[in-house]
Amino acid sequence: MGWGDLGVYGEPSRETPNLDRVAAEGMLFPSFYSANPLCSPSRAALLTGRLPIRNGFYTTNAHAKNAYTPQEIVGGIPDSEHLLPELLREAGYASKIVGKWHLGHRPQFHPLRHGFDEWFGSPNCHFGPYDNKARPNIPVYRDWEMVGRYYEEFPINRETGEANLTQIYLQEALDFIKKQQAKARPFFLYWAIDATHAPVYASKPFLGTSQRGQYGDAMREIDDSVGRLLGLLRGLGIAERTFVFFTSDNGAALVSAPQHAGSNGPFLCGKQTTFEGGVREPALAWWPGHIPAGQVSHQLGSLMDLFTTSLALAGLKPPSNWTIDGLDLLPALLQGKLMDRPVFYYRGDTLMAVTLGQHKAHFWTWTNSWEEFRKGVDFCPGQNVSGVTTHTLEEHTKLPLIFHLGRDPGERFPLNFASTEYQEALGRIGPAVQQHQETLVPGEPQLNVCDPAVMNWAPPGCEKLGKCLKPALSAPEKCSWPH
Amino acid sequence: MGWGDLGVYGEPSRETPNLDRVAAEGMLFPSFYSANPLCSPSRAALLTGRLPIRNGFYTTNAHAKNAYTPQEIVGGIPDSEHLLPELLREAGYASKIVGKWHLGHRPQFHPLRHGFDEWFGSPNCHFGPYDNKARPNIPVYRDWEMVGRYYEEFPINRETGEANLTQIYLQEALDFIKKQQAKARPFFLYWAIDATHAPVYASKPFLGTSQRGQYGDAMREIDDSVGRLLGLLRGLGIAERTFVFFTSDNGAALVSAPQHAGSNGPFLCGKQTTFEGGVREPALAWWPGHIPAGQVSHQLGSLMDLFTTSLALAGLKPPSNWTIDGLDLLPALLQGKLMDRPVFYYRGDTLMAVTLGQHKAHFWTWTNSWEEFRKGVDFCPGQNVSGVTTHTLEEHTKLPLIFHLGRDPGERFPLNFASTEYQEALGRIGPAVQQHQETLVPGEPQLNVCDPAVMNWAPPGCEKLGKCLKPALSAPEKCSWPH
Ligand SMILES: [Ca+2]
Ligand SMILES: [Ca+2]
Repeated sequence: MGWGDLGVYGEPSRETPNLDRVAAEGMLFPSFYSANPLCSPSRAALLTGRLPIRNGFYTTNAHAKNAYTPQEIVGGIPDSEHLLPELLREAGYASKIVGKWHLGHRPQFHPLRHGFDEWFGSPNCHFGPYDNKARPNIPVYRDWEMVGRYYEEFPINRETGEANLTQIYLQEALDFIKKQQAKARPFFLYWAIDATHAPVYASKPFLGTSQRGQYGDAMREIDDSVGRLLGLLRGLGIAERTFVFFTSDNGAALVSAPQHAGSNGPFLCGKQTTFEGGVREPALAWWPGHIPAGQVSHQLGSLMDLFTTSLALAGLKPPSNWTIDGLDLLPALLQGKLMDRPVFYYRGDTLMAVTLGQHKAHFWTWTNSWEEFRKGVDFCPGQNVSGVTTHTLEEHTKLPLIFHLGRDPGERFPLNFASTEYQEALGRIGPAVQQHQETLVPGEPQLNVCDPAVMNWAPPGCEKLGKCLKPALSAPEKCSWPH
Repeated sequence: MGWGDLGVYGEPSRETPNLDRVAAEGMLFPSFYSANPLCSPSRAALLTGRLPIRNGFYTTNAHAKNAYTPQEIVGGIPDSEHLLPELLREAGYASKIVGKWHLGHRPQFHPLRHGFDEWFGSPNCHFGPYDNKARPNIPVYRDWEMVGRYYEEFPINRETGEANLTQIYLQEALDFIKKQQAKARPFFLYWAIDATHAPVYASKPFLGTSQRGQYGDAMREIDDSVGRLLGLLRGLGIAERTFVFFTSDNGAALVSAPQHAGSNGPFLCGKQTTFEGGVREPALAWWPGHIPAGQVSHQLGSLMDLFTTSLALAGLKPPSNWTIDGLDLLPALLQGKLMDRPVFYYRGDTLMAVTLGQHKAHFWTWTNSWEEFRKGVDFCPGQNVSGVTTHTLEEHTKLPLIFHLGRDPGERFPLNFASTEYQEALGRIGPAVQQHQETLVPGEPQLNVCDPAVMNWAPPGCEKLGKCLKPALSAPEKCSWPH
């Protein structure tokens, strides 16, 4: 989902009344960033509070390449990482993930092995349908076992865009909340819905209802679901005891535009890039009685902050001697404070850019290769900033391109290298980057090896359903990441 | 000012709390359009309710060229036009224009000859400073006579951007409102401020206060002033008897970016073009007790509608046997109705595009010439849509480029000519355009002839001030309009 997809962020059709109301009753962050321009690394960072370069969600197969967890990936979330639900368990929290996990699909990476008590959803994206010969369809799990597969027990109509998955995910979330409330047990719900991920989908009552086409139908169903979730919290009388945060794992995938892509508002490019369109996210915090209504916070925020902030809310601290990139946002949320901090943007193993205050420095620029671009893969449709949206990987580590995001949020006008502003900004950014890089201990890269044998041929529970498939022969190789 | 310049329209710095509050207390139009991508024609259309092609605010010197009223222009608003204040006078209204008039600066075009009772402001843009030899500085008028000139009695510091003009314009407006209220006289105030027009300016208390640089300072001062104006209406107890509308005459002039240009949000290009960025405007209506609070209207609106709507509010109708392009918006404002209507976008004498429902058809595409573009004049910085943002004037009258503005507000993906949607859209648009063109009676073009003799050498009142300059010799010629 993109920054520009919510009415309150300026989407012209203004079809998100429930999310807009979350903003009106809570706090809106205009400068909140994903931890990566791609899904898996961003979600791993959310749950670990650590950059993908630390938690292993990156590749070293090639320089500056985005990588994620397709079903042939061998790696996944390392045991050594401390996931948010693992830690919250210490404070008695019940944790559930509803929707896409995306931190590895092999048994050792199962979410219930990493702190979650319940799961309903799938380990990978809902791509497909597949023939179950070259590739199996993606399984849907309830807790430890699969309960079906996409395009089989969980249909998605690729022609009409119809699927009732968001309704199922909504019901799972509502039931979980009710159950915990009845037990008076504190809970962590990770509602990781994916209706706006291509192929976008919506259930019948929402199909064709948006002015924005299929993508808008998906947005409207998510928006409606958020309204129902918050309605339940109110109805159960636990709204003032429940912290809610709405955001996304990367910018809108403009490569899927116009039918299957959202809006990154006034920002440059989309998902896969470290320009603002790829990493700036809608972000709304809601906690009636605690967060004052209708506030805007210009705190520079990161998805990883949700890890640290959630721990703080539970009275916990991250493990000592453990590097955490997330910040505790409670001073911003509750007291309106602004904390200075850098936000780093990686692509694979490469620090592409950093934001500090209002200045963003690009050390490398790249959208995708000429080869991909000529095939029609365009992460910046209709946008072309000379020397910035480059189709060759351009190094600027000595003299980064620096933009002032207040005056130039669209990253169109790099500061003049000779200007005082450039020199001053570089003087602040340089040491922050140096400190980051000098102390960085990269994790073991998890996204290097792919093997058809590890695909979802025979997930646990497949026997009961008669849905086990014959695994492919093992043929591990370096995964190929095109961009 | 651009569509994306208000917090409530998604501007990331969110520095317009007063305008955002107008939206929260009133009605926001996401699909509201100027009558032209340039200032003078748009303002002439606002006050006449008629397209520039009818009221004469266009040129026939060349095909599809934008034209306005620099101080060498010979033409201006024809007597035969019925301006809003002329008509409101019939219902007893006192009318004042504060700020830029821009409908001609020669004596016969003076606003007090066209229905206004009072004027404080200038006939032209605040360009300068000039040497008073090749060009005189632009005069500032109080009613019939000049009271000084820009850069002289009314300083604008081109280095710091400091000028207190918005404060003066605010005071003029406040005083006018108080005076009419004291007399219990109905009034029409046309508050035509220009601080966001390059060269942008702000008064000392606002300079340097915005995260967006000088343009943001200007925006903040305008926003603050709107707050004070509405505060006065409330304080005087006449808020429920005063209809307020906030909008702009064209999109942000991206050619002046980044220091002197605002934001057109997610839209394509800017001022001078008939893409959305050039013509879609912020638009807020406020009338406590009448317009329900916090509404969004998807009514396709036009600046010219303010003419017709204002007449309706005063219980008046446009003159009979007189073609008006504006629509009475009261059904949209008061009853939430949606009215079907086309909105036409001209450049000079050429119908470039039309919007009907969610579809926009481009009959001609052009940004500016290669010659201008190579000189660095760029109306679409960072944007480049192949076959759409053309630097040659491209005709598509037989097979227009059609965009769906809901799915593709950025005009990046023209519909496939062979699609059913294209055929259906063209089937609706074609007859609307045909009817418009068959019945169109173009006005006498006013923006064809320029003459250095008509510049503001010796405006009325200059003798008293000792500020008369020696006029240049008359040398009328065809005005040269580069784009
Ligand atoms: Ca662990
Ligand atoms: Ca007249």
